[in-house]
Amino acid sequence: MGGLDLWFREIHKDDIALGVRVKDVLWRGKSAFQTLDVIDTEMFGRVLLLDGLFMTTERDEFIYHEMIAHVPLSSHPEPRRVLVIGGGDGGTVREVLRHPTVERVDLVEIDRLVVDKSREFLPTIACGLDDPRVSIHYEDGIRWVRDRAGAYDAILVDSTDPVGPAVGLFAAEFYADCHRALRDGGVLSAQTESPFFDREEVASIYANLRQAFPAARPYTASVPTYPGGYWCFAWASKGPDPAPEQVRERYARLGGGLKYYNPEIHAAAFVLPNYFLDLLGAA
Amino acid sequence: MGGLDLWFREIHKDDIALGVRVKDVLWRGKSAFQTLDVIDTEMFGRVLLLDGLFMTTERDEFIYHEMIAHVPLSSHPEPRRVLVIGGGDGGTVREVLRHPTVERVDLVEIDRLVVDKSREFLPTIACGLDDPRVSIHYEDGIRWVRDRAGAYDAILVDSTDPVGPAVGLFAAEFYADCHRALRDGGVLSAQTESPFFDREEVASIYANLRQAFPAARPYTASVPTYPGGYWCFAWASKGPDPAPEQVRERYARLGGGLKYYNPEIHAAAFVLPNYFLDLLGAA
Repeated sequence: MGGLDLWFREIHKDDIALGVRVKDVLWRGKSAFQTLDVIDTEMFGRVLLLDGLFMTTERDEFIYHEMIAHVPLSSHPEPRRVLVIGGGDGGTVREVLRHPTVERVDLVEIDRLVVDKSREFLPTIACGLDDPRVSIHYEDGIRWVRDRAGAYDAILVDSTDPVGPAVGLFAAEFYADCHRALRDGGVLSAQTESPFFDREEVASIYANLRQAFPAARPYTASVPTYPGGYWCFAWASKGPDPAPEQVRERYARLGGGLKYYNPEIHAAAFVLPNYFLDLLGAA
Repeated sequence: MGGLDLWFREIHKDDIALGVRVKDVLWRGKSAFQTLDVIDTEMFGRVLLLDGLFMTTERDEFIYHEMIAHVPLSSHPEPRRVLVIGGGDGGTVREVLRHPTVERVDLVEIDRLVVDKSREFLPTIACGLDDPRVSIHYEDGIRWVRDRAGAYDAILVDSTDPVGPAVGLFAAEFYADCHRALRDGGVLSAQTESPFFDREEVASIYANLRQAFPAARPYTASVPTYPGGYWCFAWASKGPDPAPEQVRERYARLGGGLKYYNPEIHAAAFVLPNYFLDLLGAA
């Protein structure tokens, strides 16, 4: 080894830390909303940090981005207009664009710096942002959905954690606005934290969500750079659950190249261990 | 906070670290085989460390122990004689004993210190070790299985990582001996590392295992204190796969109280993301 032994670590709930050895610090900065840093690592490639927390890494970003995009979009017969809230790194948009029915994607990201720095430092993630089907709006997603009744087939809430400016993206009012902004049969996904470490937050999120979408439920994925490595996402819909053969057909249309999601994962992701079922029962 | 800010961290592959804030160091020692430490933490309760690595914690041990025990035992119509190799903390034995058909459990642990210190510091994990159906043998599991043809209905390999003395527990010769030690319809499980971080080890383990059990395959669970939080286990059997209704019946016989495993998790745990399927194809 030799030389400077540099580490970044994210501390969660004051008591656990995920650390990664750092090759280089590529950028450090600050917007009106948050701090933004980009580091380079041997283990995860380049890493985007917001307020000192892992947001996305070159090596494991495929898991989160495939799962937040393909589970909802494969639940819809023909998604044409898609709204992504947050997600300024572009990874979710890149996955949405794999669906051949998609005609237009509105990316509503409050912080222009995330988009700019992702384009500069994370081109394999940001690559979808220049597609002609994509419009980027540097606005508050909470305000954006308020007056967009019936505008979308799918809404994907790719937010930071429920602290600071993102709190409103986990509130019952926001979910009610999303419900209104969805057309008939429309579908929503959202990142909803760790069922192991963030028990109270998760219970509260699903209680809020079910006020607008009574059948909303979580699905999960294993993301190594998020606390505990076990992450949940909300699935909520104004339509029926897709049949397994529909999920398979829609997967076939994507044309391959996915590294995590497949039709069997789609179904298995909704299966929860007992402690998570208990947590939702208490919600 | 105030006072001494004490942390333990496990470094994996030189480049990532999982840290936990330490309330107290309860025991530090060393056997002929390894170092053994017990720390107390706010986040995970008491934690057993072997050679400086997380082995088990009071808070998340249920995940690993339920999954290494109930997936194989619910795959067998009537498991009576069970061999646990390693697992000196007792958690796997505790779960095995939930199955009402089990008449005898041989626990073969090479290191007596693990058993002694688990009994002393981790009573909720070690509690099964005093059951009259359990015999503890302080011997090398590799040697133990060599001359035990047709002795067991289930073998559970609850080992440390494939370095040092445990290397032989991942070798083709050992798996062939296990195959011989199983009766007709017998079933085996084994912990087999992280499919995300330990790609080469995992590919090699399954190549070895399939020499003895051609249909061997991995199943997974989310364990927060293991690297990446995503862990795989091998399932291998001399019998057929259980039908879903058999898994449900056997689960009902356990009488409740499980915190992770359920019949739907049994099936979903065998569903793998594309990157893991690719890894096995290359094995």
